[in-house]
Amino acid sequence: MASEFELIARYLTPAASGARAGVPLGVGDDCALLAPQPGRHLAVSVDTSVADVHFPADAPAEAIGHRALAVSLSDLAAMGAEPRWCLMALALGDDDETWLANFAHGFHSLCQASGTALVGGDVTRGELAIGVTVMGEVIPGEALTRSGARDGDVLAVTGCLGGGAGGLALWQRGERDLDHPLLERYLKPQPRLAAGLALRNLAHAAIDISDGLLADLEHLLEASGVGARLEPEALPLAEGLVEALGEEAAYRAALCGGDDYELLVSLPGERLDEACRRLAEQGLTLTPIGTVSAEPGVRGVDIGGAHGWQHFHGGES
Amino acid sequence: MASEFELIARYLTPAASGARAGVPLGVGDDCALLAPQPGRHLAVSVDTSVADVHFPADAPAEAIGHRALAVSLSDLAAMGAEPRWCLMALALGDDDETWLANFAHGFHSLCQASGTALVGGDVTRGELAIGVTVMGEVIPGEALTRSGARDGDVLAVTGCLGGGAGGLALWQRGERDLDHPLLERYLKPQPRLAAGLALRNLAHAAIDISDGLLADLEHLLEASGVGARLEPEALPLAEGLVEALGEEAAYRAALCGGDDYELLVSLPGERLDEACRRLAEQGLTLTPIGTVSAEPGVRGVDIGGAHGWQHFHGGES
Repeated sequence: MASEFELIARYLTPAASGARAGVPLGVGDDCALLAPQPGRHLAVSVDTSVADVHFPADAPAEAIGHRALAVSLSDLAAMGAEPRWCLMALALGDDDETWLANFAHGFHSLCQASGTALVGGDVTRGELAIGVTVMGEVIPGEALTRSGARDGDVLAVTGCLGGGAGGLALWQRGERDLDHPLLERYLKPQPRLAAGLALRNLAHAAIDISDGLLADLEHLLEASGVGARLEPEALPLAEGLVEALGEEAAYRAALCGGDDYELLVSLPGERLDEACRRLAEQGLTLTPIGTVSAEPGVRGVDIGGAHGWQHFHGGES
Repeated sequence: MASEFELIARYLTPAASGARAGVPLGVGDDCALLAPQPGRHLAVSVDTSVADVHFPADAPAEAIGHRALAVSLSDLAAMGAEPRWCLMALALGDDDETWLANFAHGFHSLCQASGTALVGGDVTRGELAIGVTVMGEVIPGEALTRSGARDGDVLAVTGCLGGGAGGLALWQRGERDLDHPLLERYLKPQPRLAAGLALRNLAHAAIDISDGLLADLEHLLEASGVGARLEPEALPLAEGLVEALGEEAAYRAALCGGDDYELLVSLPGERLDEACRRLAEQGLTLTPIGTVSAEPGVRGVDIGGAHGWQHFHGGES
């Protein structure tokens, strides 16, 4: 196996590194040096994706690279932060350089598309796992948090739900057509960065849907000290989901399946039209799915059934 | 096993979290929000410590927690950066809560001692591994880098060498007296943060010694485009090292053993006294061990023998 230094030099330094805005010193020293914009807060988060826990080990390497960055960027999206930099901690079991080149291509492509500079890395031997730290910037006071939802707010989600769980189910059944919309949703989720930026100063609260709508809704409600009533029939189901899973399982996937990486927001009803308009400019829908209430807990869904799915899904989420 | 959320809440949120300087929003949302000091550059680095690769899995949990943070902080020390924040990505195989409590105690104690706030975490299942991202601050232009060494500079090291490799050798022989100075050096290395800060505006270049003096010296020389002559007899050997390993192996450990986490600096001869004086105020020695030359390569040591040890040591470094 090539040494850590060789691997870092070959695959973790982006092709077009050079001098980049906000990076006085990139990969290659003990630390990278970054120049934050004056007067901003930094938003930082870390997520680790482990083979056969968070993604199938035999998924395409390019998708694994894309996905590992996407799930971390999704946390920046949920805060309305602008992505700037990332660091990758990669654990690798073998030295398949074709795999590594494809993995790096997926990672760097999303770096480029999202305006995120890879500024540092670390390679160790072990079970395949990718830890990605992301750093973004936000104007103080404008960050979206989980704790601002208020009684009477509308709850709304970007895009569609259930595609992550639906895609995983198809993959487990042996579907390998990467153009299938559900596989695309599962393997190459799109972090809703532009949506998060557009929702600043409109939404009271936001969270990204990584653990499933109900689970993440509960986090948001708990942080805000409120409850909610959902309208399950309003859930925007992913394309092809009912065909793939049947109607009941499709709704369960939308409620409880993980890996959707859409945003769930709480916003005043009178701002819903403006929010929908801003997201429509990005080609993205925003669908109202319920309302916030002062009374704690979630009403309108059969939580028992939901938790059953959560449990079944536990090994993969 | 407790859920990720419960584990994070119980062990990865420091006891004395509350509102801390520079942390408008800590653990518990999609991202933490940080307020960097105006006019500073950020120094960032990530290091992953894997059980039975970077440390013995049966080492004391408190030492594992300390060590995982120490090796990352050592990168900030090498840049002369002031530590501010860190994020931990923890992979855990089982749910031994006593172990986790001791691990967290080791980690949080060093957080407190170094002025580093833990602002985010991620827990996954897998082989025990700890990825720590550290963020520090440095005045633009004052960061120590690897690339500034000049012909005629003195090379010097903080503290003593070989203790990391010597401690590992003792551990492998079954020594378990944690008060043994070599075990202490190996299991609970002290990142030279104050030394790095004191050497700003004195040293031309710096690197931390994590892979062994010779290996890290080569990184520094390569980045600076220079060579060096070492004086092996000048190497400051760790206390008890010759007694534990014998003279020849002791010198090899000092030259090629990893895990010392001392600083290697290159500085003008006329600044050596001032540098020694500043470090003496911290109770730390700075020992000249050679000189920088224009001619590439390292002279004065038997590299062949050195590489032999490096190879033997490869599995543990």
